Amino acid sequence: MNGPDCPSSSHLSGTTPNAGRSWEEIVADKQRTDAAKIPLEWVLPPAVVAGAEARRSLVGAFIEGLLDAETCQITDMDVPDLVGLMESGAFTAVQVTTAFCKRAAVVHQLTRNMLEIGFNQALKRAAELDDYFRAHNKLIGPLHGIPFTLKDQFHIKGLETCMAFVGWIGTFEGHKGTGKEREFESEIIKEFHGLGAIPIGKASCSPETSNNILGYLWSPHNQHLSSGGSSGGEAVMQALKGSAFGVGTDIGGSVSMPASFNGVFSLKPSSGRISMKDVANTGPGQQIMPTVAGIMGRSVTTLRLVLKSLLSTEPWLQDPYVVPLPWRELEDYCPGKDLAKLKPTFGFMENDGIVIPHPPVQRALGLVKRALQEAGYETIDWGPPSNLESHQIHGHIARGDGCPDVWRALQLSGEPEVPQIRGLFEPDGPRDPMSLPEYQDVVVHMRDYRNRYQEYWMSTAGLTRTGRPVDVFISPVTATAGLLPEKFFHAEYTNSTNVLDFPTVVIPVTFVDKDIDVADPNFKPITETDAINMAAYDASAYHGAPAAVQVVGRRLSEEKVLAMAELVVEALNLCKAKGHG
Amino acid sequence: MNGPDCPSSSHLSGTTPNAGRSWEEIVADKQRTDAAKIPLEWVLPPAVVAGAEARRSLVGAFIEGLLDAETCQITDMDVPDLVGLMESGAFTAVQVTTAFCKRAAVVHQLTRNMLEIGFNQALKRAAELDDYFRAHNKLIGPLHGIPFTLKDQFHIKGLETCMAFVGWIGTFEGHKGTGKEREFESEIIKEFHGLGAIPIGKASCSPETSNNILGYLWSPHNQHLSSGGSSGGEAVMQALKGSAFGVGTDIGGSVSMPASFNGVFSLKPSSGRISMKDVANTGPGQQIMPTVAGIMGRSVTTLRLVLKSLLSTEPWLQDPYVVPLPWRELEDYCPGKDLAKLKPTFGFMENDGIVIPHPPVQRALGLVKRALQEAGYETIDWGPPSNLESHQIHGHIARGDGCPDVWRALQLSGEPEVPQIRGLFEPDGPRDPMSLPEYQDVVVHMRDYRNRYQEYWMSTAGLTRTGRPVDVFISPVTATAGLLPEKFFHAEYTNSTNVLDFPTVVIPVTFVDKDIDVADPNFKPITETDAINMAAYDASAYHGAPAAVQVVGRRLSEEKVLAMAELVVEALNLCKAKGHG
Repeated sequence: MNGPDCPSSSHLSGTTPNAGRSWEEIVADKQRTDAAKIPLEWVLPPAVVAGAEARRSLVGAFIEGLLDAETCQITDMDVPDLVGLMESGAFTAVQVTTAFCKRAAVVHQLTRNMLEIGFNQALKRAAELDDYFRAHNKLIGPLHGIPFTLKDQFHIKGLETCMAFVGWIGTFEGHKGTGKEREFESEIIKEFHGLGAIPIGKASCSPETSNNILGYLWSPHNQHLSSGGSSGGEAVMQALKGSAFGVGTDIGGSVSMPASFNGVFSLKPSSGRISMKDVANTGPGQQIMPTVAGIMGRSVTTLRLVLKSLLSTEPWLQDPYVVPLPWRELEDYCPGKDLAKLKPTFGFMENDGIVIPHPPVQRALGLVKRALQEAGYETIDWGPPSNLESHQIHGHIARGDGCPDVWRALQLSGEPEVPQIRGLFEPDGPRDPMSLPEYQDVVVHMRDYRNRYQEYWMSTAGLTRTGRPVDVFISPVTATAGLLPEKFFHAEYTNSTNVLDFPTVVIPVTFVDKDIDVADPNFKPITETDAINMAAYDASAYHGAPAAVQVVGRRLSEEKVLAMAELVVEALNLCKAKGHG
Repeated sequence: MNGPDCPSSSHLSGTTPNAGRSWEEIVADKQRTDAAKIPLEWVLPPAVVAGAEARRSLVGAFIEGLLDAETCQITDMDVPDLVGLMESGAFTAVQVTTAFCKRAAVVHQLTRNMLEIGFNQALKRAAELDDYFRAHNKLIGPLHGIPFTLKDQFHIKGLETCMAFVGWIGTFEGHKGTGKEREFESEIIKEFHGLGAIPIGKASCSPETSNNILGYLWSPHNQHLSSGGSSGGEAVMQALKGSAFGVGTDIGGSVSMPASFNGVFSLKPSSGRISMKDVANTGPGQQIMPTVAGIMGRSVTTLRLVLKSLLSTEPWLQDPYVVPLPWRELEDYCPGKDLAKLKPTFGFMENDGIVIPHPPVQRALGLVKRALQEAGYETIDWGPPSNLESHQIHGHIARGDGCPDVWRALQLSGEPEVPQIRGLFEPDGPRDPMSLPEYQDVVVHMRDYRNRYQEYWMSTAGLTRTGRPVDVFISPVTATAGLLPEKFFHAEYTNSTNVLDFPTVVIPVTFVDKDIDVADPNFKPITETDAINMAAYDASAYHGAPAAVQVVGRRLSEEKVLAMAELVVEALNLCKAKGHG
C-alpha cells in the first residue's frame, strides 16, 4: 500500500507541508489565527465560556442572554422572512450578516464548532449587496444577503480548507505551492455567490465531529451527548442559530444524523442533484456511492428555498455529474398534476428488524404516525429488503479501498488518529484494499438490492387505499436520540438511504423526557446489536436531547420528499395545537 | 482468478449446461431449431442464398426482388406512417407484422443475422392488438402493432437469450433449472408491450458481430466489409428493413458504429435514460460506465417516437437506475422556450488529433458542414480535451477486471475465442484484474476528464455569435466508412462519448465512391495509429459503403440531440434538392 502505485500518492507528494513543526504547534497556530478573527467586542469573558461548559444545555434563553436584542431578533428569523425584510428595505444585508457573524462567534466560543472564520469577507460582500440593492432597487437573487456556513470540505476563496486534518492546514488539500490555496472555489460556492448568499465560515467535521484541531463537539441541547458527525459543526451552528442555513456532506448519515442529534431540519438529496464539483475529498473511493451535499436549516421551507435557488442556476451546465432536472413544483410532479387527488400514503418503518430505536425515538415515530392519521393520511407498515444487506454493501463500498488517503492525510502532520477512526486502520497503516472483482461483486449486490427495494416499493400499490404505491416512508434517523460518545452501534437507518440513493428530510419531533421515555424492563432484543444498543439507553443521560424522524423518498424526488415533510410538520403542529403533541 | 472468490463464479456454478455435447453439436441443433421457425413459404431456394452470397450489395432492388409488393410497401414505410395507417384502419397489425416477419426471414437467410426468431408469438400478439383495436376503436399505445427486433441480450418471454455464447444456449445466462429460461423478461420489453410494439426476434451480436453460432456478419451494402459490432445484427436488420426499428446496446460504439457501417440512424442515449434492468450482461465490470440501450431506425423521427414512447411509461418507477426525466419538448428545454431564438451553433470535429478519417468520412463531414452553413447555422471548430485520455480511461474501466465472465462463458461450451476477442485474454485464461486503487485512479481520471470537457464546452460561449456555448458537436463515428475485417484501429470517436456519457445520434450521409474518395498521395499521418489506419484505406474495397457522422450533445440531452440531428437531415436534404449533396 505504500508503493509508488498507491492511489493517493499523487495527492501527497512533494515537500512535507509545515515541515519541522509538530502537529500541536500547527494546531496552536491555527487556534491563535482563528481567535484573532473574532472582533474584540464579540469575545466572551472566560468565565462565561467556563460556565457554559458546565451547563447541560446552551440553546434558547442561555445563548440569547449573551446577545443583544437586534441580534436575537434577526437570527431568530427564518430565511424566507429575512429575504422579505431585506427586499422591503427593513434590514440591510450588513445588518443581517453582522447579526449572524456575531452569533456565530458566540456559538464558536461556546462550542468550538468553526474550523474557519470568514466574517470580514462576509461583511464586505454584504456591503456590496447593499450597494447593489440601492443601485437597482432589487435583490441580487433569491438568497440575497443570507449568511450561511458550510462543512470545512468546501473551498471558498479567501479561506482555507483543512477538513479537520492538521496536515492540511496551510495547504491546498495537503499540497503547498499549488496556487490554489485560498483561491480555488467549489462550484456550489459560485452558485451561492450569484444567488446572493454569503458564506460566513466553515464548520468542524469528522466522525462524531471529533478531531485534533477543535476536540470533541458536543450537542448544545445536552452537552453529555455528541453532536454527531461528520457534519456536526454545521448542525450545532443551526441549533444555536449562528447562520441562516448550513451545508454539509453525507455518504452515510453525515448530514442526517447530526441534524437529528441537534434538533434541526436537513435535506440529504440523491446524488446528482447538488453539485459536489471541486469539493475537497479525501479519496477516490466514492464514485459508485458518491458523497452528496446536504442542506441543514430550521424549517422545510428553508431547505426548499435553498434547493430551488441552487437549481435555478442550472448547475448541470457547469457540473457534468449534476442531472439536468430543474426544480419541479409538486403539481407538475404528481399524477394528473392534481394535488388534491394525491392523498399521500406514508410507509412506516417502526424498526428495521435489526435494532429497535430507543424509547424517545419510538415516541417520536408514534407522534408522527398519530399526527398523520389524525390529519387524515393513510399510513401502512413498511417492510422492504433488509438493512442487513445495505450494511454489507455500504461498508465495502465506502471503505473497501482501506482508506489510504485518510491514513496519509494523518501522516502529513503526524497527528494521532482520534478514537472514532482508529478502527479503520491496522496499527501500522491502512488495511489492504479489496480486490477489484470482490468490489465489483458488491456493486452488483448494490444494484440487485436497489432493484428489489424498488420492486417492494411498487408492490405497496396493492396495500394502499389509493391503489398507488406509498409516496414516502418514515423511519428513525438513528436508533438513538442523541449519541453517547463512542456508543454508536447502528448506522443503517441512514446508510441504507445512501446505498439506495434516496433523498431524505430529517424532521425534529420532540425531546427526550426522562420521566416519559423510560426503558422497558421487559424489552426483548431482536438481535445482538439490538441488545447492546438498548442496554446503552439511559433516560437520564439522554434527557433533553432532540428526537427526530426522517422522511424518505425515491431517487431524485427531492421536491416530493420536501412536500411530504411539510405535511408531516403541519400535521404535528395541528396535533400540538389540539394538545396531543 | 479461478478461485472461489472469482466474481463470476456465482454465475457459472452448478451443473455444466449442455453436458456431454460438443459446442459444434449445440450450434447445429440451434441452427436446425431456428431454421424450423421460418415458415416453408418464406424459405429461399438455396440458389438464391448462394447467389446473394456472391453479390457485393443486398440492399434495395435485390432484396425487394425476393418479396411481394405488399411486403415491400409495408416494410418500406417508417414507423410514424405505419402507426397512422393502423390507426386509420388501412392496415391491421397482423398485416404489418406478417410483412416484417417475412422480410426479416429473408434478411436472416441472406445474412444470418438472427440469433432467435419469434415470428409465431409476434403474430399472436398482433392478432390480440387487432382485437383490441376492433373492440375499442383506438390503438393500444403509440407503437401499436410496430414490429421490432433487439440485440440478443434482452430477455423476452418465449424466446431464449444466448448473447452469442454457445454455452448459454438452452440456459438462462449460463444456468439451467433457474425457472427463468424463456420466462424472464427485461424491463424494456414490458414497456414495449404496453406501448403496443411487437418483438419479432433477436439479432446477432459480439465484437465485429463475429461469433461461433452464426459466423461473421457482413454489411449488406458491401459484403466485403464487416457489419460492425457488437449490435451488428440489428444494424443489418434496419439496413434491409426486416423490422421497423431495433434496439442494441452500447458501451463503446456498439450501437453507433454498426449504425454507421450499415447506413441507418441510431440514438445512443446517456446512461439512465432507457432501462437496462434485467438485461443479460456478461459481467459486473460495467457500473461506472454502464452499457446503455440504443435505438436504431430509418429516421430521426422514428428514434424520437421510440424514446418518447418509452419515457411515457415512466420507466423510473420500475428501474431505480433510470433518471426521472420525462420527455421534454425542445421548446421547454431551450433558453426562453423560444426555438426561433435558439439559432444553434454546431461544433465541428474534423478529426480528433489522433486519427484522421478516411476520405469518404472527410467528405461526409464536409457535406454536413456545408449544408449547415448554407442553411444559415453557425459552425465552429471543436477542440476539446483529447481522445487520448478517453482511450486510457475506457480500456481500463471496460476491461480492467480482465473480463473473467466472458472467459467463463466461453469455457461453458468449450467454443474457441473468435479472433476479435482473442486479444482480451492470455492463452490460458483472463488477465489479472487491476487493483482496486488503480481502478479508482482511473475513475478519478474519468471525473477530471468529464469536468475539463464540460469546462471546454462552456468556454465555447466566447466563440459563438450567440454568446451561448455550442449546442451540439458533429464528429466522425469512426475513422472509416465501413470496416475491413480485423482492420479496426481507433474506436475513440465513439468510446469518448461513453466515457463522457454523452448522447449521440448517427446520421448516414453518403456512400463511398471509389472515383471521388481517392486516397491522398500526399497524406501526412499525425500519429502512428493514423499512419496504420490510412494505409489500410482502399477506395475500391470500401466502394458502396455508407459514410456517416454523429451529432453529440451534453449528458442527458437526448431531446436536443435529436432535434439538432433533424436540422442536420433537413439541411442535407435542402442541399440535395439544390443539387449540392
